[in-house]
Amino acid sequence: MLPHDQTAPLDPADWEEFRALGKRIVDDMADYMAGLRDRPVWQPVPQDVRDSLAGGLPESGAPMEDVYEEFRATVLPYPRGNIHPRFWGWANGSGIPVAAYADFLASVVNCTLGSGENAAMMVEQQVLAWLKQIMRWPDTGSGVLTSGASMGQIICLAAARQAHTGETDIREQGALLAGTQFTVYGSTETHHSVEKAVELLGIGGRHFRQIPVDGDYRTDVTALRAAIRRDREAGLRPLCVVGNAGTVNTGAVDPLDELLSVARDEDLWFHVDGAFGAFAQLLGTHRPLLAGMNEADSLVFDLHKWLYLPFDISCVLVRQPGALEDAFSSGADYISRTSQGPASYPLAFADRGIEQSRRFRALKAWFALKTHGVGAFADTIKGNIDQTAYLTSLADASDRLETVSRSDLNIVCFRYVWPGATLDELNRVNQGILSRLQVEGLAMPSHTVLDRKFVIRVANNNHRSTEADFDFLVEQVLSAGDDLRVAAR
Amino acid sequence: MLPHDQTAPLDPADWEEFRALGKRIVDDMADYMAGLRDRPVWQPVPQDVRDSLAGGLPESGAPMEDVYEEFRATVLPYPRGNIHPRFWGWANGSGIPVAAYADFLASVVNCTLGSGENAAMMVEQQVLAWLKQIMRWPDTGSGVLTSGASMGQIICLAAARQAHTGETDIREQGALLAGTQFTVYGSTETHHSVEKAVELLGIGGRHFRQIPVDGDYRTDVTALRAAIRRDREAGLRPLCVVGNAGTVNTGAVDPLDELLSVARDEDLWFHVDGAFGAFAQLLGTHRPLLAGMNEADSLVFDLHKWLYLPFDISCVLVRQPGALEDAFSSGADYISRTSQGPASYPLAFADRGIEQSRRFRALKAWFALKTHGVGAFADTIKGNIDQTAYLTSLADASDRLETVSRSDLNIVCFRYVWPGATLDELNRVNQGILSRLQVEGLAMPSHTVLDRKFVIRVANNNHRSTEADFDFLVEQVLSAGDDLRVAAR
Ligand SMILES: Cc1ncc(COP(=O)(O)O)c(C=O)c1O
Ligand SMILES: Cc1ncc(COP(=O)(O)O)c(C=O)c1O
Repeated sequence: MLPHDQTAPLDPADWEEFRALGKRIVDDMADYMAGLRDRPVWQPVPQDVRDSLAGGLPESGAPMEDVYEEFRATVLPYPRGNIHPRFWGWANGSGIPVAAYADFLASVVNCTLGSGENAAMMVEQQVLAWLKQIMRWPDTGSGVLTSGASMGQIICLAAARQAHTGETDIREQGALLAGTQFTVYGSTETHHSVEKAVELLGIGGRHFRQIPVDGDYRTDVTALRAAIRRDREAGLRPLCVVGNAGTVNTGAVDPLDELLSVARDEDLWFHVDGAFGAFAQLLGTHRPLLAGMNEADSLVFDLHKWLYLPFDISCVLVRQPGALEDAFSSGADYISRTSQGPASYPLAFADRGIEQSRRFRALKAWFALKTHGVGAFADTIKGNIDQTAYLTSLADASDRLETVSRSDLNIVCFRYVWPGATLDELNRVNQGILSRLQVEGLAMPSHTVLDRKFVIRVANNNHRSTEADFDFLVEQVLSAGDDLRVAAR
Repeated sequence: MLPHDQTAPLDPADWEEFRALGKRIVDDMADYMAGLRDRPVWQPVPQDVRDSLAGGLPESGAPMEDVYEEFRATVLPYPRGNIHPRFWGWANGSGIPVAAYADFLASVVNCTLGSGENAAMMVEQQVLAWLKQIMRWPDTGSGVLTSGASMGQIICLAAARQAHTGETDIREQGALLAGTQFTVYGSTETHHSVEKAVELLGIGGRHFRQIPVDGDYRTDVTALRAAIRRDREAGLRPLCVVGNAGTVNTGAVDPLDELLSVARDEDLWFHVDGAFGAFAQLLGTHRPLLAGMNEADSLVFDLHKWLYLPFDISCVLVRQPGALEDAFSSGADYISRTSQGPASYPLAFADRGIEQSRRFRALKAWFALKTHGVGAFADTIKGNIDQTAYLTSLADASDRLETVSRSDLNIVCFRYVWPGATLDELNRVNQGILSRLQVEGLAMPSHTVLDRKFVIRVANNNHRSTEADFDFLVEQVLSAGDDLRVAAR
């Protein structure tokens, strides 16, 4: 056997050097995270850095310190920015430091969680049990961690399809032989990943029925019922109603209990996309808003959004214990179970979804929840909601700002306005404001378009933001707007 | 704004404590990795640990040191084992230490790589360019990193389907309206993830045609041509030929150049599953074996297998520059491009696959390739192949061992034999041998069944193994076999 003083080729040639580098990385990253507030939220990547990041395949190696130095010079200063206290774009989480240690540990032990007996599998089971508890999901339900809500929609819709396969096993026979044209229903505000899932499954994007919304961007239930009826009359087979617990544009929460009733009446699968919003379930104040969510057939939510964990970690829960296995399990000699040893373990997460190799992503949830306790998450989520309400109140109070959409969660869309402005002028000026905020690295909201209005969109999944950050945002929007408005004429 | 001495709720209350813990983790993990050889490959998870890993949701927090202590006591001693020098089960990689630092850094900067201008996006572009070079893939081709080959098969088959959509846009219309019943072809030895992909896409598992193999487990090309002809005659629409660059059971490499010819003759998409085997492309000696692979329409390979990177990181390459976008791109107001700022960046990896939020998994490939140089990977891969040949020679030389399958790559299947034994006795004894190896933590091959024979399967994706480890394996197999054979009567 390899003598102990000899190292494997791709292990560090010198473990002392490895330790020293690790400690430097720890110090640097602690400084970096503690000092985020002093950095721009974002900055453009300069040409020399771009050039350096276009260099060819390294034939021979370099000291790991040098590689780390290069990372410090070229990557670290030019991140996406979502860990900064004033990033509120799209729907990104901010990343909890202790979870980054967990990701290091996960990569050291390097378990893959497809199947087999080991502690990592049990950690994922435990985390799933915790998440069921957080979501007030029945204990008898099943679930799996996955890479994101986009993957989750696919997993859930595949489970829905298989559960409604009828006489013809659709996994085996395919859509054409099964002969059923399924249809899926969700509001016009549904995240595009649902339509992508419908496309992928071969159901066809046009069979994703976009149901109109009310003035608060919530699914119009009457229109939903009518659409289902029309489809049945046309000989189609309604499969699934998708409800939103927090829409991506405005943070609207659909009337989930009403959608649940529709699904039950019509014998459809009820899927809830709670990518970020589902975590409001942690707050007693918000549970009534989410009524019905925990009675769905499937639910997807991202721990890398409103649980602030580093990418990627998302969760699928289903109500029927075997629904995921029905859609995804498969047998093969090389993964068959044995009577003893690791392969005797009955649980196989690979049978609950698409991934066979599966990163030990459960560990970061385990670490973060144990370190901070679920109470601290509830408090921080409440904080984000309060901050968003505060920002909304600032926009409401200013005659130069218009709140275009408001929510009970963590999203507000607003814009800079002035009397007599045309839609076009407003759109141009608000684009200019947003660009200035972003390019100067002051703050990072994103944008969307609501009723043809270009709006500044703040989605607050950020554990580092404070009220003062929103004061600052409003100041900057106003001063940029005042400047740009003059030029807009 | 938040004064500098105040920390955010889910940041460490005390950054000094955070640093101290990080340094301890670095030391412990260096010890752990340097000392792997002294540990059992695997051990059962004791009941008290199972109980502890079934504890309820933590309501309040705990010092992070305590959480780490718990990890050290309950998780660290009971891993899957694939980082140990004598783990050769299934097709798992062993994990390169420097890449674990990269995973920590990725979780600190916490970029998500769906779209937008930042250095992380450029790192992924760079890594893709390197991987194209390694695979001798045309520079004009496109690609994306993903979580595993299972996901990769789905992405590639969706691209194939869209490229062959004909008059009816299948994404939009669905399989039923398109009215074409696609068929997909791969050998009986094809990994089950391909069939899962065919099922998911709604093509139907029965339309995955399992083509017989020759005595070396390679696709029978004549049978393939006949199957395609039969399907056409039956009015079906052959879509894709799947070739294997390294089958999961035995490491067989299909006659890829011949499969390529079939695909070209028949106007089919040619997809290669090179989950581990594709990396043999790094060796001049093995390039002839893989001829045709780099002319495929799509290729999938796992960096978490034979590039030894921690889970998860896999790569999809396609030949047609826009093939992935054709299948996956989508527009929505909330992700639309702007004229300035981060959202002005033209590249969107989210449009090349399923994931919208995407972990910065490119960083570990970047770190590992820069630190070690591609030459060290080529050497280690060659080492694994040589070790496998060595083990094969040991089995060939022993009259108590039978080599059941051999390969030019890193897999060998063998079993313990004795004169006059029945199939059943042999199967029972070899199961017993494998269990003993695994349960006693001596070595971790896995098993498969070839021609009804239960065989011990060694798949060597391990940068830590040495020849002496295989001597040890053979000794242990023989002595366990000698013991168990007596009892088998
Ligand atoms: C409501 C909603 N659903 C789904 C998604 C997609 O989630 P992921 O990026 O994790 O795939 C998002 C992402 O922003 C979202 O906001
Ligand atoms: C040949 C082959 N293809 C595909 C896969 C699936 O890869 P992953 O586990 O990365 O999804 C494997 C895994 O062992 C494999 O060996």
